[in-house]
Amino acid sequence: MVHMIDPLDFSVEEVGALLDLAGRIEAEPKAYAQACAGKKLATLFYEPSTRTRLSFEAAMLNMGGSILGFSSADSSSASKGESVADTIRVISCYADICAMRHPKEGAPLRAAHYSRIPVINAGDGGHQHPTQTLADLMTIRKRKGTLDGLTIGLCGDLKFGRTVHSLIRALSRYAGIRFVLISPEELKVPEYVLNEAVRPRGIPYEETTSLEEALPRLDILYMTRVQRERFFNEEDYVRLKDSYILTGHKMRLAQPGMAVLHPLPRVNEIALDVDSDPRAAYFEQVQNGVYVRMALILTLLRLAEKGEASHA
Amino acid sequence: MVHMIDPLDFSVEEVGALLDLAGRIEAEPKAYAQACAGKKLATLFYEPSTRTRLSFEAAMLNMGGSILGFSSADSSSASKGESVADTIRVISCYADICAMRHPKEGAPLRAAHYSRIPVINAGDGGHQHPTQTLADLMTIRKRKGTLDGLTIGLCGDLKFGRTVHSLIRALSRYAGIRFVLISPEELKVPEYVLNEAVRPRGIPYEETTSLEEALPRLDILYMTRVQRERFFNEEDYVRLKDSYILTGHKMRLAQPGMAVLHPLPRVNEIALDVDSDPRAAYFEQVQNGVYVRMALILTLLRLAEKGEASHA
Amino acid sequence: MVHMIDPLDFSVEEVGALLDLAGRIEAEPKAYAQACAGKKLATLFYEPSTRTRLSFEAAMLNMGGSILGFSSADSSSASKGESVADTIRVISCYADICAMRHPKEGAPLRAAHYSRIPVINAGDGGHQHPTQTLADLMTIRKRKGTLDGLTIGLCGDLKFGRTVHSLIRALSRYAGIRFVLISPEELKVPEYVLNEAVRPRGIPYEETTSLEEALPRLDILYMTRVQRERFFNEEDYVRLKDSYILTGHKMRLAQPGMAVLHPLPRVNEIALDVDSDPRAAYFEQVQNGVYVRMALILTLLRLAEKGEASHA
Repeated sequence: MVHMIDPLDFSVEEVGALLDLAGRIEAEPKAYAQACAGKKLATLFYEPSTRTRLSFEAAMLNMGGSILGFSSADSSSASKGESVADTIRVISCYADICAMRHPKEGAPLRAAHYSRIPVINAGDGGHQHPTQTLADLMTIRKRKGTLDGLTIGLCGDLKFGRTVHSLIRALSRYAGIRFVLISPEELKVPEYVLNEAVRPRGIPYEETTSLEEALPRLDILYMTRVQRERFFNEEDYVRLKDSYILTGHKMRLAQPGMAVLHPLPRVNEIALDVDSDPRAAYFEQVQNGVYVRMALILTLLRLAEKGEASHA
Repeated sequence: MVHMIDPLDFSVEEVGALLDLAGRIEAEPKAYAQACAGKKLATLFYEPSTRTRLSFEAAMLNMGGSILGFSSADSSSASKGESVADTIRVISCYADICAMRHPKEGAPLRAAHYSRIPVINAGDGGHQHPTQTLADLMTIRKRKGTLDGLTIGLCGDLKFGRTVHSLIRALSRYAGIRFVLISPEELKVPEYVLNEAVRPRGIPYEETTSLEEALPRLDILYMTRVQRERFFNEEDYVRLKDSYILTGHKMRLAQPGMAVLHPLPRVNEIALDVDSDPRAAYFEQVQNGVYVRMALILTLLRLAEKGEASHA
Repeated sequence: MVHMIDPLDFSVEEVGALLDLAGRIEAEPKAYAQACAGKKLATLFYEPSTRTRLSFEAAMLNMGGSILGFSSADSSSASKGESVADTIRVISCYADICAMRHPKEGAPLRAAHYSRIPVINAGDGGHQHPTQTLADLMTIRKRKGTLDGLTIGLCGDLKFGRTVHSLIRALSRYAGIRFVLISPEELKVPEYVLNEAVRPRGIPYEETTSLEEALPRLDILYMTRVQRERFFNEEDYVRLKDSYILTGHKMRLAQPGMAVLHPLPRVNEIALDVDSDPRAAYFEQVQNGVYVRMALILTLLRLAEKGEASHA
């Protein structure tokens, strides 16, 4: 059984194939309108994440499949003390594939171990969120035509931001990548991320506290939300949350071909006047998220039918 | 893009066409069983309203479409501080049409402004609830054969009752309408509603505190619930909530052709012995609600496909 | 209108026909993949029960039908004071069949009285849970080839366990049944259950406090969870909850052809090392639950179409 737990579960070639399939789906959605007919996706959301859940559900419905599941732990058997292992064995009787969001790191991996159906990690704590990463990669590739040779700026909360860590790890596998890490001192990329993904490959990176200084040399600017729930105290949050706001004014410093990404939801870290800039790619990124999830669901279901051995 | 935010967004002729379509759907449901195949409805309920949400979902499913969404703000991204404008741009990537319920007046209108898909207001605070009004109009027209020349009694909470205000505004556009407004002093129709919809058109209306006195001359009696959540203090609620209860005994005063409507849920403002009276139309009204929502969804999807200019 | 409120609503012959249909569905699922096309199931869960709700939803989706509903009382109109009678009359406008879970005993029966569509009791308080019983019967019959002549051990919380009482009542109708009731003194089967179902038929039964003593002579061992929420105080719960744990070691005392059932979720009353024992039938029981719910939904919808008279 093949699962998608970590963005690196798929090789660079496999990711390429997935993005190619997503592109074909986007180009010809009608050809896939019944690709999952008779199949069921279970969305197991132990913490709410409307955007991600609905993206998975839209993906499955777009292919003629159907959906069932729960949207918060309150309405799940978890509240009766059931283990993830037992839950997934039960869900394996109900659905053909599942997407799991869980506040505990490693829960989807544990589920995959006991599952008879493909498990997609839809976010586990501060850990991984591979389908967000796939949406990011698809958006970058569509905007720049390649994933190689790019200078990628990451801005905002680089310490707690799960999507940032996943994206760094995923992009580190492409040739000629450079990272510009833009954050306050308190929210720098953790050492273990650099040690694992960046330094061993000799990928050039720089750390800066100034968005304006960095902007002119970026191919991609990946903005992130400063999440209130990641802070230990309210005072730090208030002091830092507005530090790295992208405005139309600052956008004048950027290259005409740059693309701005954001995993959303945003609060105010991208000013509304950026939305109409053609370089704003964050809503396109949402749409790409549906296509890559369609491609992923379809690929995992096909592999499950072929009964191939596990990657996870 | 055409939306349905306010019951008056559609002209009298357009409402007529909608009710005609709803009638055809009711007469021949099988002819519409695949009318929305491959289309997705998003139900965005920022406050719970099971009845309205399920009516929309049943409507979409009856036409072969599919549904996704959320049923309370807890499980939505709103709790992460996202704006309605951003949410609807995301939902536009997931669905073909949406129904939005929101505690804040004007939220669906604001969403419509940013939306790439038709937005149906499924109730915004104490403001509008246009599909309830359409269900009311359909029920009146089916029962009386016309929307012209009727004497309409409205009873109960006429001050806070959103459905009452919408219905008054909607009916004011028909010829020969008379209103009989039955409520305690404290819960009378607000002046602004009369000034906007009733007085400028010279529509005859009377205000009375007595249901029994008014009953004999009504063609339609529209009962409403005295909603606990609209009161400033519990004492007022307790004193007033039972003032206007319709019973089988009082029904003897009414005309044989009168129809009793109620937006539901009722608590005790209509006694159970009225349910078996052929003049009780409130469960029929629920069924009509499904048909008008089917007609509305179908109409808005067709207009969206034609790319017609916005009404909203 | 035929409903399924109590496990005994169907005769032994009708249950047999239902299990036969469930078996045919299991053998040839594709033959039933469109059996409910165009039909809608409403899942009305006034208290959360993910496992049961998803089993019903999977069952309906497996037959090409669609689903709508709510998963907790918070998101239902119940919070506005609506009666079950009114709710079911509204739901009758939205769906073709419904499954209702309710914390109050008798609520589904009351709903059935007012419903225009078949009502399936999906658990009412500590009272009945007929589809669990059907899943139990199907599992026993598949494992042992018959429902007659079996020695059935029931272990754990036999006092509060709704599924245990329903299963005793259901099995009492078969020939040559013997019960071995294994529990601490505090959690014995209530007298009224024995007086109603067991003693009048002269069914042999014994009560014991020792699982190990009982194990060797059982054809079926039905384990149950000691539910924290049924206890009056935490101290009693802690003292008793671990009393009746089934382990791989104890399984050596059991016959090779015995089957272990459990309604799930389990906490720790069955040790994980039992899962790989071929006698462990509890996950198979979950899968059987989907098949019997498919058979039940299909049977009730067919009966509703024929307009047959009510059993309930």
